[in-house]
Amino acid sequence: MTQRDHMLDRLYAAILDRRGADPASSYTAKLLARGTAKIAQKLGEETVEAVIEAVRRDRAGLVSESADLLYHLLVLWADAGIAPGEIWAELQRREGISGIAEKKSRPKP
Amino acid sequence: MTQRDHMLDRLYAAILDRRGADPASSYTAKLLARGTAKIAQKLGEETVEAVIEAVRRDRAGLVSESADLLYHLLVLWADAGIAPGEIWAELQRREGISGIAEKKSRPKP
Amino acid sequence: MTQRDHMLDRLYAAILDRRGADPASSYTAKLLARGTAKIAQKLGEETVEAVIEAVRRDRAGLVSESADLLYHLLVLWADAGIAPGEIWAELQRREGISGIAEKKSRPKP
Amino acid sequence: MTQRDHMLDRLYAAILDRRGADPASSYTAKLLARGTAKIAQKLGEETVEAVIEAVRRDRAGLVSESADLLYHLLVLWADAGIAPGEIWAELQRREGISGIAEKKSRPKP
Repeated sequence: MTQRDHMLDRLYAAILDRRGADPASSYTAKLLARGTAKIAQKLGEETVEAVIEAVRRDRAGLVSESADLLYHLLVLWADAGIAPGEIWAELQRREGISGIAEKKSRPKP
Repeated sequence: MTQRDHMLDRLYAAILDRRGADPASSYTAKLLARGTAKIAQKLGEETVEAVIEAVRRDRAGLVSESADLLYHLLVLWADAGIAPGEIWAELQRREGISGIAEKKSRPKP
Repeated sequence: MTQRDHMLDRLYAAILDRRGADPASSYTAKLLARGTAKIAQKLGEETVEAVIEAVRRDRAGLVSESADLLYHLLVLWADAGIAPGEIWAELQRREGISGIAEKKSRPKP
Repeated sequence: MTQRDHMLDRLYAAILDRRGADPASSYTAKLLARGTAKIAQKLGEETVEAVIEAVRRDRAGLVSESADLLYHLLVLWADAGIAPGEIWAELQRREGISGIAEKKSRPKP
């Protein structure tokens, strides 16, 4: 892992590293040990909090809850054996389709 | 790929680019025009779908819904004037704290 | 079914009645035909909307979204073969426990 | 049981009764004191749990989480000054519309 890796990719690697750690000293290890439903539940809870902070226009709250949301999303990917690169590729693929769609929808000269 | 070239940072830039586009031809422009509550609602909906796919152990479904979730999260940041770098910095800060916490919690020799 | 039945019990009976209806003319029949995950997803979506209306202090919006939420919750019960009476009994049981707990927690004279 | 004696109406009355209780001994009083956003957050969390239990086909779990969901929904109504009767009336109104809609959508003889 080099310094040039994106924060989310480094965080994902850190999550995988902690998978085998002692649940008593690692929140990540504990969460992974509790299983898919519990991790998914936590993702849902953090999203509810992010939604509320957004609607309240609490900018700092939204930054904090977004970080929580992303951490739990990455743990859910780790639990499912999904590498972040698969999601980046899916987003890339959609950007391509969207770009084509936008070109097509431009009014003809 | 450098940090500023990461898929999520490019997607965020694309969202900002479309902000002023015609809502009739750009979903992003239309969503931003509908306002914070609607964007937050969409984030909540996509998370519910990701949670369900995870619990159903539908791996492809979770990849697809995770991409939807992230897109709507980035639109919510754009709406709130939050740059992705603020979230990466928050995650970085927590990683540092977490690293220190893990060292502190190691049994003394 | 008599007029004295509570609205929620009558609504649940109406949902069961429509179970076998033509999905083309009955939203309830269509939703039940789509299955558990879809019904659960709709419940999640309606709750996100209720949460947002509450935080926005939109009283009429909260009334409307609460009605949507309850309808979809009843459809989820119908899908799972849960009669409303089972939920009322669970709430009754908790009220009893809570009443006992409150008595116990009163300061001794 | 008459309409005003329904479990949900009695639970709502109990919630109102506890509004002024000591937050140290009453969960309801404590929750109401924390305010709208916190109550809404709890409703969101309980719904996520109900959604997960439904998708896992855990019938007992869905009964339990549905009771939690309804309790927190009633607290949210109490916080917003909404009487349960307003929601029953809204559901009644929709049933009427739905009944008319179903009649209208019947094929003409």
